[in-house]
Amino acid sequence: MTTQPAPIRVTVWGENVHEHRDAEVRAIYPDGMHATIAAGISEHLGERAVVRTATLDQPDQGLPPEVLEQTDVLTWWGHIAHGQVEDALVDRVCDRVRRGMGLLALHSAHLSKPFTRLMGTSCNLRWRNDGQRELVWTVKPSHPIADGIGDVFAVDAQEMYGELFDIPEPDELVFISSFAGGEVFRSGCCFARGYGRVFYFSPGDQEYPVYHNPSVRRVIANGVLWAYRSAGVLDTAYPVANAPAGWIEKTLAEQQE
Amino acid sequence: MTTQPAPIRVTVWGENVHEHRDAEVRAIYPDGMHATIAAGISEHLGERAVVRTATLDQPDQGLPPEVLEQTDVLTWWGHIAHGQVEDALVDRVCDRVRRGMGLLALHSAHLSKPFTRLMGTSCNLRWRNDGQRELVWTVKPSHPIADGIGDVFAVDAQEMYGELFDIPEPDELVFISSFAGGEVFRSGCCFARGYGRVFYFSPGDQEYPVYHNPSVRRVIANGVLWAYRSAGVLDTAYPVANAPAGWIEKTLAEQQE
Amino acid sequence: MTTQPAPIRVTVWGENVHEHRDAEVRAIYPDGMHATIAAGISEHLGERAVVRTATLDQPDQGLPPEVLEQTDVLTWWGHIAHGQVEDALVDRVCDRVRRGMGLLALHSAHLSKPFTRLMGTSCNLRWRNDGQRELVWTVKPSHPIADGIGDVFAVDAQEMYGELFDIPEPDELVFISSFAGGEVFRSGCCFARGYGRVFYFSPGDQEYPVYHNPSVRRVIANGVLWAYRSAGVLDTAYPVANAPAGWIEKTLAEQQE
Amino acid sequence: MTTQPAPIRVTVWGENVHEHRDAEVRAIYPDGMHATIAAGISEHLGERAVVRTATLDQPDQGLPPEVLEQTDVLTWWGHIAHGQVEDALVDRVCDRVRRGMGLLALHSAHLSKPFTRLMGTSCNLRWRNDGQRELVWTVKPSHPIADGIGDVFAVDAQEMYGELFDIPEPDELVFISSFAGGEVFRSGCCFARGYGRVFYFSPGDQEYPVYHNPSVRRVIANGVLWAYRSAGVLDTAYPVANAPAGWIEKTLAEQQE
Repeated sequence: MTTQPAPIRVTVWGENVHEHRDAEVRAIYPDGMHATIAAGISEHLGERAVVRTATLDQPDQGLPPEVLEQTDVLTWWGHIAHGQVEDALVDRVCDRVRRGMGLLALHSAHLSKPFTRLMGTSCNLRWRNDGQRELVWTVKPSHPIADGIGDVFAVDAQEMYGELFDIPEPDELVFISSFAGGEVFRSGCCFARGYGRVFYFSPGDQEYPVYHNPSVRRVIANGVLWAYRSAGVLDTAYPVANAPAGWIEKTLAEQQE
Repeated sequence: MTTQPAPIRVTVWGENVHEHRDAEVRAIYPDGMHATIAAGISEHLGERAVVRTATLDQPDQGLPPEVLEQTDVLTWWGHIAHGQVEDALVDRVCDRVRRGMGLLALHSAHLSKPFTRLMGTSCNLRWRNDGQRELVWTVKPSHPIADGIGDVFAVDAQEMYGELFDIPEPDELVFISSFAGGEVFRSGCCFARGYGRVFYFSPGDQEYPVYHNPSVRRVIANGVLWAYRSAGVLDTAYPVANAPAGWIEKTLAEQQE
Repeated sequence: MTTQPAPIRVTVWGENVHEHRDAEVRAIYPDGMHATIAAGISEHLGERAVVRTATLDQPDQGLPPEVLEQTDVLTWWGHIAHGQVEDALVDRVCDRVRRGMGLLALHSAHLSKPFTRLMGTSCNLRWRNDGQRELVWTVKPSHPIADGIGDVFAVDAQEMYGELFDIPEPDELVFISSFAGGEVFRSGCCFARGYGRVFYFSPGDQEYPVYHNPSVRRVIANGVLWAYRSAGVLDTAYPVANAPAGWIEKTLAEQQE
Repeated sequence: MTTQPAPIRVTVWGENVHEHRDAEVRAIYPDGMHATIAAGISEHLGERAVVRTATLDQPDQGLPPEVLEQTDVLTWWGHIAHGQVEDALVDRVCDRVRRGMGLLALHSAHLSKPFTRLMGTSCNLRWRNDGQRELVWTVKPSHPIADGIGDVFAVDAQEMYGELFDIPEPDELVFISSFAGGEVFRSGCCFARGYGRVFYFSPGDQEYPVYHNPSVRRVIANGVLWAYRSAGVLDTAYPVANAPAGWIEKTLAEQQE
């Protein structure tokens, strides 16, 4: 067991639209939000991860099969261009999650096509963009996504996301946020879908330097580790399968070989 | 509080295809499976429920808006005609669940369009149709869906449904089944989706008289009670909502009026 | 099914110590907090419930076997006298919960002996008594405990309870509170223990008129309905049971009789 | 990030009574069950873990403070001597779990004092010792405890453990077992308690060579990895803490230093 495990192949997908339109956004994220998110992951995971970025404006919307099929964990940030993401790509992303790829849905990705399809709910919420302070509270301190995160940390200025957040009840709830205006939000939520894991994390908006926040970066890196399936991604999706009499004995016998 | 609450409006939807094609199915369910399921609900709920049936071969596939919008709890059985259910109807069913309607997905409805869309997974499983005995074990005896159900009951002959059942981890797991061949199955699963509740219950196949089984009938009736939202179904779906500064104070003030 | 079900037998247990010591508490709750809590339940449940009160200063600490064994749902409020509750009574309360009695642990009952023993954790939390406003947010609007409760309601002045709240992750999380100081708290939590159900609800303190708040009263009444096991409380606790070969067949045969 | 993380300090605690009394048990486990369990963990984790054993007959029942406080993950096997474990030791074990130590409760440890106290339920179940085959089914294949485990594996001869298993509903259910007699059992269950994680895994009995089974060994090793808290074990238990006005600002300021 002294061999080093293969690094986690992370793809940071970014919509990359605001960065081109809005000078304020570009000032905060001169290389795009995806670059900052990717840097935060590398900062924490070092050689344990190989991180690349992909954006909507690239061929195949940044995720041609040869990229997606080489991705162990995909992070997704989108906002104003959710509708431009092609349904065929959404099919491929959801299929790969179900086969074992990890997915981190970040902030406004709550309304992205892959996330809403995997959740089965509207994923709607309340919002207000007035740069209020968000406090992020750890409520499941045994969870590895909370590693290195204390009882509470602050995002100094942020868009408010508030309940009701119309998601299925998470398998595990790691963080709850409060906002200066009084709202609360389930801001760190774990779900399993098929062989894959999904982590939703709400801090992060294009107008604020949230992805430069050290605690936010740490949570995202932790999320990558948690969502990574060390047993790998299946080659094919789990099918409806006829299981003829005797299949169990046959399966057990094959295990002996 | 001496007034009687309004009865629960239940619609039992059936695909109603096997009953026309297969004499064996008709022999077991001469009026259709939906009629038997409906009778089982009425048998237990009496005046607490008004039960009607609806089938795929009716206008608007049995669920025109005036029927669906008068339904508090919908039960769904389908098998070979999942693909015929129109997407617009699926949209309306899922929307109403999210606004508070209860949904019972029965047996092969694991692959129905409304259920898979609400789950966000493939809902695939293993199966074998050899009429084995299914034992249904109660694992959450505090749950009202288990009311009147003992530690275990039998379905004498049944199609085997086995793990892996590719669903999200249920909010609450009430029943686990075993089959004579050795397989297990999470056979009674509770989920919340938006303002509505979904119960999946696997016993029940067109080739066996499962919906005549007293315990199965009791579970389905219990499921109707559990899935019923006494606070009612919302008129409109929960939106993405801008929440301007002061909205909380305004909301609280309105509660005082 | 036209017969009326038997009413739910509710016992509201109160420590009843502050009410005797502190004139301010007595001014808010002249007949004791238990009387106000009981009135709130009766107000909503009417003939569906028969509500009695019991207090620590009564014989057998208010819960002699003949009272406890006639209780379907027990509500518990305690604070400075947790240590005075006899272990033998705690044994009997926990045993009855495990056999099917509902338990509502209110506010400072988070540290009561029955609740902590049923949880298996410290149930510690952060607190500050400065009469801040608490906002209670519904996060599972499909849940019957939220019936009649809107998206948010306020408790105008209240002791702050904040995370980390050291409980097991609830089976279902219905409410999250925020406080003016920025803290959050999982304020409405559902658990199952054996055949019984436990609901923890945090609003409520002796120094503030919280149990006169209409929304708080509604939630507690809803909690009674949810925690009530309509299938009844078992006569004896579930044992470690030897299950000899053939026990299943014998059990199934008995069901046929 | 090229530095190797510190190895996980695992202590395998064994009651070690059957091994001395029963020749049949000694024949299967000549060095004690704890030695076999420890070997299985080392086999899989290699240098990632430092594994020691501890037994009831040792001073301080094998877990003096200097051992327990150097343990990151504790595995526990007990059966006929549960009652001999001193309450003071149980206090220390539960306290350390709540501060972040992982705990694996194996087989008959379902009735051990630490496990039942952490669960808050009786943890009773049905059993029959007739050496039937157990099939262990994976129901959450995204979970790292299932890494390297297929859809199903067999334990050729085993004591039957069957539902109802009186535990709180697990945070995550990874395995369900079936037995040749028809019973089912939630055999792989994950719980969080405070800062620590608890995994219950039922395969394993003194009369059968279960801890020599390759899949069982793999699951236990996976369980150690899952239960390990990489952020470490807290020095002191989480207290009830007064949180004076301004504590949040002070805490955030300290994070900046």
